Amino acid sequence: MRAIELAGGFGLDKLSLVERADPLPGPGQVLVRVRAVALNYRDLLTVNGHYNRRQPLPLVPCSDAAGEVEAVGEGVSRVRPGDRVCSLFAQRWIAGPPSAEKLRWTLGGALDGVLAELVVLSAEGVVATPPHLSDEQASTLPCAAVTAWSALVDEGSVRAGDTVVAQGTGGVSIFGLQLARLLGARVIITSSSDEKLARARELGAAEGVNYRAMPEWGDRVKELTGGGADLVLEVGGAGTFAQSLRAVRPGGQVSVIGNLTGTATEVVLTSILMRRVRVQGILVGSRESFEAMNRAIALHRLRPVIDRVFPLAEARAAFEHMAAAKHFGKIVIRL
Amino acid sequence: MRAIELAGGFGLDKLSLVERADPLPGPGQVLVRVRAVALNYRDLLTVNGHYNRRQPLPLVPCSDAAGEVEAVGEGVSRVRPGDRVCSLFAQRWIAGPPSAEKLRWTLGGALDGVLAELVVLSAEGVVATPPHLSDEQASTLPCAAVTAWSALVDEGSVRAGDTVVAQGTGGVSIFGLQLARLLGARVIITSSSDEKLARARELGAAEGVNYRAMPEWGDRVKELTGGGADLVLEVGGAGTFAQSLRAVRPGGQVSVIGNLTGTATEVVLTSILMRRVRVQGILVGSRESFEAMNRAIALHRLRPVIDRVFPLAEARAAFEHMAAAKHFGKIVIRL
Amino acid sequence: MRAIELAGGFGLDKLSLVERADPLPGPGQVLVRVRAVALNYRDLLTVNGHYNRRQPLPLVPCSDAAGEVEAVGEGVSRVRPGDRVCSLFAQRWIAGPPSAEKLRWTLGGALDGVLAELVVLSAEGVVATPPHLSDEQASTLPCAAVTAWSALVDEGSVRAGDTVVAQGTGGVSIFGLQLARLLGARVIITSSSDEKLARARELGAAEGVNYRAMPEWGDRVKELTGGGADLVLEVGGAGTFAQSLRAVRPGGQVSVIGNLTGTATEVVLTSILMRRVRVQGILVGSRESFEAMNRAIALHRLRPVIDRVFPLAEARAAFEHMAAAKHFGKIVIRL
Amino acid sequence: MRAIELAGGFGLDKLSLVERADPLPGPGQVLVRVRAVALNYRDLLTVNGHYNRRQPLPLVPCSDAAGEVEAVGEGVSRVRPGDRVCSLFAQRWIAGPPSAEKLRWTLGGALDGVLAELVVLSAEGVVATPPHLSDEQASTLPCAAVTAWSALVDEGSVRAGDTVVAQGTGGVSIFGLQLARLLGARVIITSSSDEKLARARELGAAEGVNYRAMPEWGDRVKELTGGGADLVLEVGGAGTFAQSLRAVRPGGQVSVIGNLTGTATEVVLTSILMRRVRVQGILVGSRESFEAMNRAIALHRLRPVIDRVFPLAEARAAFEHMAAAKHFGKIVIRL
Repeated sequence: MRAIELAGGFGLDKLSLVERADPLPGPGQVLVRVRAVALNYRDLLTVNGHYNRRQPLPLVPCSDAAGEVEAVGEGVSRVRPGDRVCSLFAQRWIAGPPSAEKLRWTLGGALDGVLAELVVLSAEGVVATPPHLSDEQASTLPCAAVTAWSALVDEGSVRAGDTVVAQGTGGVSIFGLQLARLLGARVIITSSSDEKLARARELGAAEGVNYRAMPEWGDRVKELTGGGADLVLEVGGAGTFAQSLRAVRPGGQVSVIGNLTGTATEVVLTSILMRRVRVQGILVGSRESFEAMNRAIALHRLRPVIDRVFPLAEARAAFEHMAAAKHFGKIVIRL
Repeated sequence: MRAIELAGGFGLDKLSLVERADPLPGPGQVLVRVRAVALNYRDLLTVNGHYNRRQPLPLVPCSDAAGEVEAVGEGVSRVRPGDRVCSLFAQRWIAGPPSAEKLRWTLGGALDGVLAELVVLSAEGVVATPPHLSDEQASTLPCAAVTAWSALVDEGSVRAGDTVVAQGTGGVSIFGLQLARLLGARVIITSSSDEKLARARELGAAEGVNYRAMPEWGDRVKELTGGGADLVLEVGGAGTFAQSLRAVRPGGQVSVIGNLTGTATEVVLTSILMRRVRVQGILVGSRESFEAMNRAIALHRLRPVIDRVFPLAEARAAFEHMAAAKHFGKIVIRL
Repeated sequence: MRAIELAGGFGLDKLSLVERADPLPGPGQVLVRVRAVALNYRDLLTVNGHYNRRQPLPLVPCSDAAGEVEAVGEGVSRVRPGDRVCSLFAQRWIAGPPSAEKLRWTLGGALDGVLAELVVLSAEGVVATPPHLSDEQASTLPCAAVTAWSALVDEGSVRAGDTVVAQGTGGVSIFGLQLARLLGARVIITSSSDEKLARARELGAAEGVNYRAMPEWGDRVKELTGGGADLVLEVGGAGTFAQSLRAVRPGGQVSVIGNLTGTATEVVLTSILMRRVRVQGILVGSRESFEAMNRAIALHRLRPVIDRVFPLAEARAAFEHMAAAKHFGKIVIRL
Repeated sequence: MRAIELAGGFGLDKLSLVERADPLPGPGQVLVRVRAVALNYRDLLTVNGHYNRRQPLPLVPCSDAAGEVEAVGEGVSRVRPGDRVCSLFAQRWIAGPPSAEKLRWTLGGALDGVLAELVVLSAEGVVATPPHLSDEQASTLPCAAVTAWSALVDEGSVRAGDTVVAQGTGGVSIFGLQLARLLGARVIITSSSDEKLARARELGAAEGVNYRAMPEWGDRVKELTGGGADLVLEVGGAGTFAQSLRAVRPGGQVSVIGNLTGTATEVVLTSILMRRVRVQGILVGSRESFEAMNRAIALHRLRPVIDRVFPLAEARAAFEHMAAAKHFGKIVIRL
């Protein structure tokens, strides 16, 4: 079977298409024929060596796959050959609150990832694909959608009538927009592009704020909401955190769901204290959370937004496309 | 009646003992004869002009009082003359989550405070004093104890078997220690003084960490807890926040309950994100929260820890004592 | 001003249109010119002496009004003359969880009600009317809608993808249907009338179950949901509770929001225990809950379903219409 | 190895000590050498055929064991030979809220139980024994203690200052008393025996109510608490449920944790509705809940209360002792 491998060092030029022996599922495992893989910014960081510098190589990158169960190992009754499934980002986070153990075993580093035609996963580490979605669409769910759902529902308790701010138009933010709409919330999107803001409005955003035209966009959100948003999905980048703290209402929540830069941010803690704000780190979610989200996605026949699909042979181009940061929604590799 | 007034500018030397006309309660108000007032660090900041530079003067400082209802205005049935009561820090925060409106009307700035023999408060803005406490003891509750309770219970859901870290031995931290013990938690105290750590152990702390001897105390907490504390009460000061983030377990909470310095702190947001940590700003709590705490305090006959009591005439010395930061527990002024 | 008064005993024939002196607002009160009043089944029970046999008479019945602030008493800044407002069912339940005190002061008994041209309420006991609603529409909110919202949101935490069962097509159930849809849930409606089920489907119900054709409708819900609904809104009546317990999934909730008969029901507690079901009594909700609901109603421009509007002079006919139990949605009296 | 087997029909006389082949752990399983087994009322019902009439026989009864890991199957890293462990009542309920699937696989029926010298369990289905406890003490935890913890903590959010009522002095109630004390609550115990009430007071109960002397004990609780308890642990029996509903405060919770009789109870639903009471079914809890409880038990060095210990050969006498209902705390069988 073919796979994409990061070997010999970090960097996009260290990615190559290799032939590997077909893996076999052991007891409690499943073999999945991967049909589509979606990229996350974390994958780009990983390949470039910026996510975990001690990541052992070679590594098959990527965490988010959709495909079909090809075979199951001894003792597996949870899924059967032929089932359509998605991968679970944190393979051992089945239910309940996070723990070090649950957060440790993630695909695409620490564990080998899914950018391969065949992968072996724990039988507990897959989720049934919503029937109305193609594999390409379903591949976008494991990290970006679950992260947005977890921020909105598990930790955010967003309900109809609340206002949610999503920053930019990357994968998590667009899912944030779509899922917040399912929950009955009003969504404000920020972007540096009026054209992307127009597309976000078509997806249901009530308002768009161009942060290039309005660098103090936190104040603009305050105006639009009469005092601040209930929840801000903070995906990081220069200076956004301070604006997020301005944008949120007293008693509201800033969900830290990505930090593109990884560098230190200056925070005046009194701005958290004095308005009793909650800053909640979000790192994907449990399998039960994924399944709950899928019930909502299936009921509402939500369609993930795919920016572009690349064939496996052009996987590197897919990464470069992500690096260029021009996308709207998810970037997918078809196998 | 006599009162302490901040007038003519900021600074401890602008505090003076003045004679004012006795106030009268209007409809829906109560007149309270104040017997004791407890200081908070916020009061020192306020007097020095570091809390709110636009604070109109003159101002009667301080928010935390205990005393007796002297008279009630028209239509008041909630309390009666002779009732022993404490002041409510945020006069309009009766119940439910915070809001801008609820957080705005606080005693000792924005509203006039309680360092006076007689004060008029909203009839909704007082709480019955736990019967086993003296007024001096009860005066310590409105800000410091309610803040600790709110962090531990309302936002922290601390339960028996959890581990809580309290920083230093100021008022909020000592209440954090005492209340966390009532809830069945294990408490780790940090301090720069071995003698204070010894006293904290007498009050029920399981462990003490001298942060002078061990500046990387976050790692020490991780060791002591096998992976991190469930909740850290962050009271601020140089460099504590980074250590708090190290000290907390994945999925745990850092309660930001004070920020002595007010200056910006460098935060690497990925440390919040990657371990799914919650950073929760805490600014006192509601009246219902205060009342729930009082039920616990009364049941367990908890005694607040008072460092020293000053007479009204020496109010300035009380502020200076706080500024010296040598205290253990609360500083009280007797009227 | 004119009012409807229950005097001289219980029963619809004891209702009469009377002339009363215009009331005046005292300190902390508002005078509201009532434009519309909505009926609840509780009002019928009250008038017939089945709600509280010790209810002192005369009584102005009804709790749910919408109108305009005509004047405000001393010290009132929360609302102003000209503001459009709805009445708060439990006048002192402003925020937080319920208590005996909060549940005691309800309009239309214990307190005098709102079926009058002018009523005096606490300034804290009114809520701003959603701007897109007429007074007739807004009058339906205080009891029926808030009860449904409280069951779904405050106690039910219903979220997108959940399944909710609403029994019948009375006021609370239709609000349950409409509000559950805003929250992204799937709704199953039960009724004895196929025509009413068809109308419920037009309002967004996914399924309708005719309980006359299918008395064991709990099993039908189980089938339709693959194991049981997440939440059942139990509005009472013969034998529904046992079916509700069958209809709910393990770990799910039955919200007891009405009990038309008031007689004892046989319950096998093991059916609650063995499936870890929650049975949650719901008696309206707080003002903050009402306000949160109004934000959702305003955002989605939800329109309450009104069955029929009666003029004040025909108030008795309105009660008779409710007693006939043929209505779909709310019955309103216009003033 | 020796085991107790229920074979040839239901009834205590169908229990016999048999010799069985030593079982071997398969992949993902552990072999546990059982040292002690604790009885629950459910075990008595099961043996008498009153729990599940379609229970296939032969059956090894009982769910609660403590012992030592003897061997582990392929791929098991969670525990190691020599580890001291307790059994998990619901073998597949690892974390998160309950589901039909999680509640189905319980020991001692549906699954074979633990009253045997050697048992094979899922490696996920055991919990580390708190080090300070003997195996006899630890064997009491899996059902009774976890049920009490789950009612108090997971569903009850009991906190310091709350009042909890525990009915009688059986296993769950005594754990309810002990654990509620760890959480800082005040406990009221009911019993028909003044001597048992005296023993409960020694364990920390604040009050005892003799329900024989005072059949309307719900009203007595109301008096003692000034309006009702926050939480009532309802373990069933004639007429207790109606008293529990009287004993609980408005907005409070009745946890249905046992129903000794299994027969229908008359309930006036309006008594649930009008006081917004929650009736919460509790059927043990998850492994994470068990582990959280063990942290509390270990921290406070809580000792379970054992009524009497029987040798394996006298297992039937142990069941008869339970049937006599004279015990105080748990009945244990030593292996």
